[in-house]
Amino acid sequence: MRIAVLGTGNVGRTLASALLRGGHEVRMGSRTAGNEAAVAWASEVGGPATEGTFADAAGFGEVVFNATAGSHALAVLEAAGAEQLAGKLLIDVSNPLDFSTGSLQLSVCNDDSVGESLQRAFPDVRVVKALNTVTASVMVDPGSVPGTHTMFICGDDATAKAQAAALLQGFGWPAEAILDIGDIGGARGMEMYLPLWLRLYQASGTAVLNVEVRAAPAPDDG
Amino acid sequence: MRIAVLGTGNVGRTLASALLRGGHEVRMGSRTAGNEAAVAWASEVGGPATEGTFADAAGFGEVVFNATAGSHALAVLEAAGAEQLAGKLLIDVSNPLDFSTGSLQLSVCNDDSVGESLQRAFPDVRVVKALNTVTASVMVDPGSVPGTHTMFICGDDATAKAQAAALLQGFGWPAEAILDIGDIGGARGMEMYLPLWLRLYQASGTAVLNVEVRAAPAPDDG
Repeated sequence: MRIAVLGTGNVGRTLASALLRGGHEVRMGSRTAGNEAAVAWASEVGGPATEGTFADAAGFGEVVFNATAGSHALAVLEAAGAEQLAGKLLIDVSNPLDFSTGSLQLSVCNDDSVGESLQRAFPDVRVVKALNTVTASVMVDPGSVPGTHTMFICGDDATAKAQAAALLQGFGWPAEAILDIGDIGGARGMEMYLPLWLRLYQASGTAVLNVEVRAAPAPDDG
Repeated sequence: MRIAVLGTGNVGRTLASALLRGGHEVRMGSRTAGNEAAVAWASEVGGPATEGTFADAAGFGEVVFNATAGSHALAVLEAAGAEQLAGKLLIDVSNPLDFSTGSLQLSVCNDDSVGESLQRAFPDVRVVKALNTVTASVMVDPGSVPGTHTMFICGDDATAKAQAAALLQGFGWPAEAILDIGDIGGARGMEMYLPLWLRLYQASGTAVLNVEVRAAPAPDDG
């Protein structure tokens, strides 16, 4: 499959490399073609790895990962262009982290989220929120966290969520670990989890962590 | 031990009854003495169960649970009175839930939390945030959720956290399930987790749920 990864940071490079290893053709997108990190990544990994502008990458990909900072995501997708994105699955892995005050805050939360704002701005795009609740290395290597643990996904389009889940399984997430928490409004919860995640990181001394959801059988089960 | 439970709702009654079963003397506090729910609770459970105003209860308790709505917690503690609370452990189990828009929002989040605002307003009180991340029945019956799962606590005072952990163990939480996530600033993460919790509830079809934290060994372990 042809996949675009928007963003040249640690998350973007980690996802792009894992997608390549999974046999996909990957184009990394950034603000300007010839971005140093993107060029270095493409030459380092070899294979069907290319780089270009956000619009180049979005036009190339059948599926698009947004691995840019949450606070820039809307501008990035505008640069990518609605026509390049139309009808495609966009997996939004971003978090609206804002450290400008010296401590973690979210640049949007409570009454909105990045995932929702992208879906509103690009109604023809099938946005699925996923992966933002774990660190980059765990996104593509869930086995690095001991035992079973949960990957949340949400979005308005069931087919898009099934496609996203298949890509997650390609990263090693067992089907039964992927928990669909409903429409794209669930992005609010997935993004607002970040301040707790940061404390879990501090308490654990490692970012290689995740949570497993455990629930009693639902009252109408059996 | 003499324990005050502020709040006569489901959370307050559930905690108060469990504390009584644990052999404690419990006084339930509400805005006015003779509150119908509090009187009904005290007569139903029998034993060393009494009720009174927030100030009566706070003066009685060696430990105080805040089981009122997060958006009212500050006013409740002001009614209880700084002199009744001074030096005591206050376990804040509240959530700043605001359904006034028709969907869940938090009345405070991102740059503050109920737990932090209580600690700021009452510097002589030893505030510990705990229990707000699970439904009332799970607070006092963690075994109703299958397997092991995590109870977060935070607060500025290590002795207060140890006291709170002992009370949680009295409810059935294994010591190793109780995860200290640092100072009272952790309340922000514990409260902002609620929108995700609500989605987990909807996805699971039951509120009898929780998460277990799983982390790789920290880099400096062994």
